[in-house]
Amino acid sequence: MPFTRVVAMAGGVGGARLAHGLAQCLAAEALTVIVNTGDDFEWLGLTLCPDLDTVLYTLAGIENRKQGWGRARDTGHVLEALGPLGAPTWFHVGDRDLATHLRRSELLWKGYSLTEVTRVLAQALGVGPRVLPMTDDELRTRVVTPEGEMDFQEYFVKRACEPRVVGFRFEGLETAQASQAVLEALEHAELVVLCPSNPYVSLDPILSLPGIRERVRNRPALAVSPIIAGAAVKGPAAKMMRELGLEPGAPEIARHFAGTVQGLVIDTADAGSTAEIEAMGLRVRAAPSLMRGPSGRAALARVVLDFGQELAGGVHVDVGDRPRQAA
Amino acid sequence: MPFTRVVAMAGGVGGARLAHGLAQCLAAEALTVIVNTGDDFEWLGLTLCPDLDTVLYTLAGIENRKQGWGRARDTGHVLEALGPLGAPTWFHVGDRDLATHLRRSELLWKGYSLTEVTRVLAQALGVGPRVLPMTDDELRTRVVTPEGEMDFQEYFVKRACEPRVVGFRFEGLETAQASQAVLEALEHAELVVLCPSNPYVSLDPILSLPGIRERVRNRPALAVSPIIAGAAVKGPAAKMMRELGLEPGAPEIARHFAGTVQGLVIDTADAGSTAEIEAMGLRVRAAPSLMRGPSGRAALARVVLDFGQELAGGVHVDVGDRPRQAA
Repeated sequence: MPFTRVVAMAGGVGGARLAHGLAQCLAAEALTVIVNTGDDFEWLGLTLCPDLDTVLYTLAGIENRKQGWGRARDTGHVLEALGPLGAPTWFHVGDRDLATHLRRSELLWKGYSLTEVTRVLAQALGVGPRVLPMTDDELRTRVVTPEGEMDFQEYFVKRACEPRVVGFRFEGLETAQASQAVLEALEHAELVVLCPSNPYVSLDPILSLPGIRERVRNRPALAVSPIIAGAAVKGPAAKMMRELGLEPGAPEIARHFAGTVQGLVIDTADAGSTAEIEAMGLRVRAAPSLMRGPSGRAALARVVLDFGQELAGGVHVDVGDRPRQAA
Repeated sequence: MPFTRVVAMAGGVGGARLAHGLAQCLAAEALTVIVNTGDDFEWLGLTLCPDLDTVLYTLAGIENRKQGWGRARDTGHVLEALGPLGAPTWFHVGDRDLATHLRRSELLWKGYSLTEVTRVLAQALGVGPRVLPMTDDELRTRVVTPEGEMDFQEYFVKRACEPRVVGFRFEGLETAQASQAVLEALEHAELVVLCPSNPYVSLDPILSLPGIRERVRNRPALAVSPIIAGAAVKGPAAKMMRELGLEPGAPEIARHFAGTVQGLVIDTADAGSTAEIEAMGLRVRAAPSLMRGPSGRAALARVVLDFGQELAGGVHVDVGDRPRQAA
């Protein structure tokens, strides 16, 4: 039987791509994507949710593949005009991308929750699967560096990940709650997939919210390593690992998620680590995980769902040989 | 002696053009433009100030002359993307124009007054004369029609001035105060010029603020008729007059401002009304007032300053034959 309730957790580009792969293999109503909001920030007074946008745009097929953020074929006329007016322009906001920030901020000001606003945006963009922000509360990832703490976007964009990372702090964690929709989705999940997103700044913020990790542990759950042959496909994960004194590689990812998930998908390039990871009590599936193009995303999703079926009890799931949606 | 302290009052396009003409004839520090904010409104949660923008853009030489609002050579990519997201798109905001709204709103959210924000924007846009919003408080022009009251922009843009006007109401007038800068500028004005803006929805909101009309009366002051040969150059002034049971023409404009100013500039096409207007106790100057291009603006400004000099006491003012700034 095919899965009818899969929950994926995602942050940026890698996570969004696997979510898109899963969307190609599952019925729209069978997939829920829980998205990190620790990267959110205020820009000219607007609320920007970079990870939510990356997931929404990728699922809608309008993401900018080259730059890894924003919308495809966008222009930068507003930003161009903002500079001379004295506004900060280090965060690159495209014109069509800005429309999303404006509409989201408008609805938030009107009193809608981020969960409700995200549903409106997803529907407007023609996104089938349910996309949920991890929380409607404010939780902000702060990067701890030798020069002090900084906002994630300041570290990530303004400083281009240059400062050395010595730790992370999730501001607001004392009071932030996972949304009810997130908790319920996890409770009824047949499979939980931790997408190949940065473990420290994309997935840990989600898993840190009260009740989340515990619910993941109680469900069939697997993670997909974002590290291939010691390097991150995109983003600062490997650099962060080195700076934190960890060896970038699938075993370290396994160590990070052992106790939370039961299985880890690693790249075939890392198949040599299988025994080491299995010794941590995790089941392992090695597969090509680079996700070249939409068909590569669907291929990895099929591996994930097949492996998930094993973890969920061994019943064969017919996930099909072909994506459900054209790439 | 040339004027060293001229105060102009302006609303939309006509007012902005004469303000630009005056800016060409006077030293930057000699001109203050007080601008109507009764047209301001909220758009997607941002504060838009259409008249302030028209004046700023026109003084900066970046106004869109064809459409009468917004910036020259602008694009509409954000608005294009907003539509499918369910946002209202009847108010046309260009991309570069939006940068102004974003920056203004950002600074207002940070706690700066509209007067302070306008100074920042004017400086950024290279505008020499001082541009002052009439108030830092909220005063909103409401148009009374047989179908009920509506916001000015709803009447003006969304409904294209189609509803019949039966009156106006300035919401917030009970509490709104003219800014200190406005009151002081008027107190020290050697000449006050009511630019050829709509008398009911551009100039009356300014004149209605406590202390303004009284200060104008105490200074040498003149108005420039926005009606030429019974028609408004731009906008709904003539239509409004007819609907209010008034005959569109220079005499009606004279009647409207008699008791507030001492002189009226009318178009040469209306020179036949001179005696009728003089009978109301106003001095009259007839001149070509259509303001074709920047040189036409400067030409009318020279007439205004020359006439103003007469009203101010007859001393000849050398305003020069040429604009101070290139067009």
